[in-house]
Amino acid sequence: MKKAAGHSELDDKTITLIDEIAGRIRASIDGGKLPSIEFPVRSLDNVKYDEVKGYFELGGARKVRTLTVNTARPFAQTLRMMAIARGMVEHDDFATKREVYYISKNWGECRFDEQADSDAIMDDIEAVASVHGLSREQLRFYPESHGGSVAGRLVVIDRNAATGQTVEVDCSSLGSGAYSIPRSAEHLSFRTDARFVLAIETGGMFQRLNNHRFWETAQCILVEMGGVPTRATRRFIRLLSDNHNLPVFCFVDCDPYGFTNIYRTLKVGSGNAAHINRFLCVPRARFLGVTPKDIIDFGLEDATHKLEPTDIKRAEDALQNDPFILAHPQWIAAIKQLLKMGVRAEQQALAKWGLNYVIEEYLPRKLASEGSFLP
Amino acid sequence: MKKAAGHSELDDKTITLIDEIAGRIRASIDGGKLPSIEFPVRSLDNVKYDEVKGYFELGGARKVRTLTVNTARPFAQTLRMMAIARGMVEHDDFATKREVYYISKNWGECRFDEQADSDAIMDDIEAVASVHGLSREQLRFYPESHGGSVAGRLVVIDRNAATGQTVEVDCSSLGSGAYSIPRSAEHLSFRTDARFVLAIETGGMFQRLNNHRFWETAQCILVEMGGVPTRATRRFIRLLSDNHNLPVFCFVDCDPYGFTNIYRTLKVGSGNAAHINRFLCVPRARFLGVTPKDIIDFGLEDATHKLEPTDIKRAEDALQNDPFILAHPQWIAAIKQLLKMGVRAEQQALAKWGLNYVIEEYLPRKLASEGSFLP
Repeated sequence: MKKAAGHSELDDKTITLIDEIAGRIRASIDGGKLPSIEFPVRSLDNVKYDEVKGYFELGGARKVRTLTVNTARPFAQTLRMMAIARGMVEHDDFATKREVYYISKNWGECRFDEQADSDAIMDDIEAVASVHGLSREQLRFYPESHGGSVAGRLVVIDRNAATGQTVEVDCSSLGSGAYSIPRSAEHLSFRTDARFVLAIETGGMFQRLNNHRFWETAQCILVEMGGVPTRATRRFIRLLSDNHNLPVFCFVDCDPYGFTNIYRTLKVGSGNAAHINRFLCVPRARFLGVTPKDIIDFGLEDATHKLEPTDIKRAEDALQNDPFILAHPQWIAAIKQLLKMGVRAEQQALAKWGLNYVIEEYLPRKLASEGSFLP
Repeated sequence: MKKAAGHSELDDKTITLIDEIAGRIRASIDGGKLPSIEFPVRSLDNVKYDEVKGYFELGGARKVRTLTVNTARPFAQTLRMMAIARGMVEHDDFATKREVYYISKNWGECRFDEQADSDAIMDDIEAVASVHGLSREQLRFYPESHGGSVAGRLVVIDRNAATGQTVEVDCSSLGSGAYSIPRSAEHLSFRTDARFVLAIETGGMFQRLNNHRFWETAQCILVEMGGVPTRATRRFIRLLSDNHNLPVFCFVDCDPYGFTNIYRTLKVGSGNAAHINRFLCVPRARFLGVTPKDIIDFGLEDATHKLEPTDIKRAEDALQNDPFILAHPQWIAAIKQLLKMGVRAEQQALAKWGLNYVIEEYLPRKLASEGSFLP
């Protein structure tokens, strides 16, 4: 096997897994038996919230796809897609979901008619791999969306794909620009003296903190999430947090969407993609602000907006059904307080006290009492 | 006046303009006359498509805002907003539209009730500045959205905001990552030996071309637009193209949205923001593909999708009303051909022939006949 530059142990593990599955199928056929493949069940009744680990996980239920007249097509498609993954690991290439769908257009009868079909089979393969500790990116299926921007006290260690030589990107010397996280971070490593990662909801706030080199004085790494963080952003933050034992502080709008969508997605993932949470969620994330209490403590009352009916519904849903919220009394109290106040506040609202109040006052005061961050 | 690091001639010009407007108002008041400010009219009847320049431009119509009982509030808000801009130029700071709105929360009676009001006044001020060759970014009003990602044969020359020292970012040594364009590119300069800029619609395609270092062999700069390019991306490409006399080739899906929204926005801007086109449009842009002819030439017929009713409507609208399309017979022919074929094709459809067919076959063949690019 020709090993591409940067071939890793996980790559060997991936190829071994695919070869084992293929080997069992071949043995069944040689033995005159109908071959089958076993997948974890991905439906919600096979998902549980693990309070200790702090995220949604797949349970033990399995489904078996056996080759029959009716399953011949998806069975063949599954095998071809695994072969594609194997080839991509070997040659250090990748494909987006959309590209995998198009590749099949050259498979004759075996082609996918709709991308929904190829996505479903990709999810099945991903679920199998996840049981063996291998992410979708490890299979070389990359997301379409790039990751957010990064600046601060961090050196990203990558490699030149042509020569295999190490490439270092110093995120503290990119001027007013930033490092754009690639679609897969699996092959990256890091060097950093940062004390924490600051994950920021809005692009404007990221640019402000970067232009004023907030990361220099606060000794941190800034990551722009741009709303709900993409898969690439989540994985990047997770690897960074894990490998360097870094806490992750989230700086997000004070509204139910910020709490239960942006922050919660980063920290615990989501129930309907439980097989990927183990790679993507960031258990060390905590909520720096903006909190309902901050609206009072920092005099933002007249820079708020009324909660919309969708905000109220989202908050009430969380109080009733969200296992993550329900596991944390502080979150229950914060959401109840917000509902009582009847308003929401954006992180930019701090500009009421001056553009750089956030740098000179808000963040230093908050960072001085890390213990009070919401869990 | 304390000059911040990186203070430029355009900064001086901006401050002079604001001082002149303020001076005239002061003189009116001192002379016992009602002060007034003159703005370019921004409505569509004061917009024309200039075929020679190749973009939509504001005409000569002006409106005058005179201080009266009814206009006291917007008049005062306009002055305060100009004062904010002046201060930001002096102190090398910036504000997003949203931040400007929030800053006003501390203006007492003069505060904005809705962001729509502050945006409208910002647009007025921007229109005044544009007449003097000054962009909104020069006034230090930055967009919220960041620019796309960049990789390739380009060194971006920026500065350390704290020390004023020059910072160089080499976009050819960022590994699988990329340079994320900041919200304003006004202060950047460049060093490059690239032959052209390749502006790419989708993130997945950008990652593919970057991972395979397409920019190295093709001697170019890759820019990810991610759909319709943001203001920051457009300004960055424009400055790069202008300052280094670089052609810009657009690699976009073959559908009416790709032609009339993504490509056309990059090249000529839009009619309802005519006062900014002179800074943002990229007259040297040309359309590399994917073209309707490519669907046939590269055998993509079975990797297409049927045109939706919205596609057909968009195409027919362009053929009837779009002055840019109507000024170019080649575009009329291409859109008519697409309507006749009844299908659209995405750039990822090239994956039908193999993931890297786009690198090994499609782009080299297209680049060998630059003369055939659509205008």
